[in-house]
Amino acid sequence: MAKTHTLYQHGTLALLVPGLLDGTITMKELLEHGDTGIGTGEGLDGELVILDGVPYQVDSDGKVNVVKDDFTLPFANSHFAEYRHLTEIEQLSQPELDKKILSMTSNNTFFSLLVHGTFTNIKTRAVKKSHKPYATLGKTAENQSIFLKESVEGTLLSYYSPQIFDGAAVGGFHHHFLSDDHDFGGHVLGFGGATGQVEIQQFDTLEQHLPIQNKDYMNYDFSDWDILGEIHNAEN
Amino acid sequence: MAKTHTLYQHGTLALLVPGLLDGTITMKELLEHGDTGIGTGEGLDGELVILDGVPYQVDSDGKVNVVKDDFTLPFANSHFAEYRHLTEIEQLSQPELDKKILSMTSNNTFFSLLVHGTFTNIKTRAVKKSHKPYATLGKTAENQSIFLKESVEGTLLSYYSPQIFDGAAVGGFHHHFLSDDHDFGGHVLGFGGATGQVEIQQFDTLEQHLPIQNKDYMNYDFSDWDILGEIHNAEN
Repeated sequence: MAKTHTLYQHGTLALLVPGLLDGTITMKELLEHGDTGIGTGEGLDGELVILDGVPYQVDSDGKVNVVKDDFTLPFANSHFAEYRHLTEIEQLSQPELDKKILSMTSNNTFFSLLVHGTFTNIKTRAVKKSHKPYATLGKTAENQSIFLKESVEGTLLSYYSPQIFDGAAVGGFHHHFLSDDHDFGGHVLGFGGATGQVEIQQFDTLEQHLPIQNKDYMNYDFSDWDILGEIHNAEN
Repeated sequence: MAKTHTLYQHGTLALLVPGLLDGTITMKELLEHGDTGIGTGEGLDGELVILDGVPYQVDSDGKVNVVKDDFTLPFANSHFAEYRHLTEIEQLSQPELDKKILSMTSNNTFFSLLVHGTFTNIKTRAVKKSHKPYATLGKTAENQSIFLKESVEGTLLSYYSPQIFDGAAVGGFHHHFLSDDHDFGGHVLGFGGATGQVEIQQFDTLEQHLPIQNKDYMNYDFSDWDILGEIHNAEN
């Protein structure tokens, strides 16, 4: 039976900071924990959006590819979709949407949003895949492409994590986007107006899986890093 | 099949800080996720140590009780024991033990220790159960009893969590103790010398369960608290 109250996470946001970018889970394995999800590929190879069991990758050229079972990822989330209708929105900017949702639901557990509709002035990014030896997140993120659309129909797939999990997960909202035409998407940096249906799925469990087979991860000394400071610089 | 690579956690360390001390899981439910574990009862009612499926509570009088299935807890860990021998130790203080273990194993994943042997100058504490409206952790912890033993045979049950999970879990080591004679134990504040066998069990997964049925938890605004600062004051 699908565990629709569980959010699965492989890796941590923190491990991206020093550049521990080996792919440590395959897409096949990730899909065993959900038909819906987000992530990034080995070496920060694009931005993933999984919808209805199909894993789409927005690469640094802005192209949308369906990736294979053996595609690997250092950091990803997935869950089995069982959304319920929450609200309709009209011309809400990203901060307005975030604020509205948090006024309607608890900030103290994990949940996912699925917003389908029209997005105006939406800005996304995708990072270009890097190779070993990997640079730090700060350096690698300099190689990101930024994409803009004045108006596009599509799906915003978001995860919300309580602030106490910041660093392990992305504290607050983490939004990815895929257009209906599969020609635009990525990690969302912002939008001017979203109009459409908002669905929500609340979780009671985070299943946090760590890449204990990966020696670089297991042997790494994180203590020299201001992990949260680096994350907030790179994510914004 | 028992999931011996998974550490189950109910609640967060953070929720204790403002005094969200309702028992939100029963011992029966906790034991479904493991035969070994630690925790505290509703209202910080003593310190729990679960060994071989038997849940012992050290109360604030220092008495050791076996609790019933319907005993409830706001915060607890459990897992299915499958320890392996790690090392032998002789007259190691708590900081020396912690340091030795971290030099032998990765700091970047969750693990449990089981140390059986003789402990000298061991200091434990157990908090007295409080009732609603609960005070904050800082206030409630003032009602703790401190217990000392010059020398005692028993079991140290410890969990280690990577620092990035501090606040959700107890970052670093969290040690509980139970004497072989079941007449001494609690949350460990320190020991002068431990001599005996150290066993370890490493996990690749944290199954973090949150009390989403509890309105006090779900509606609480954590943003006014310096959660980590409060925790480090209360835990040390």
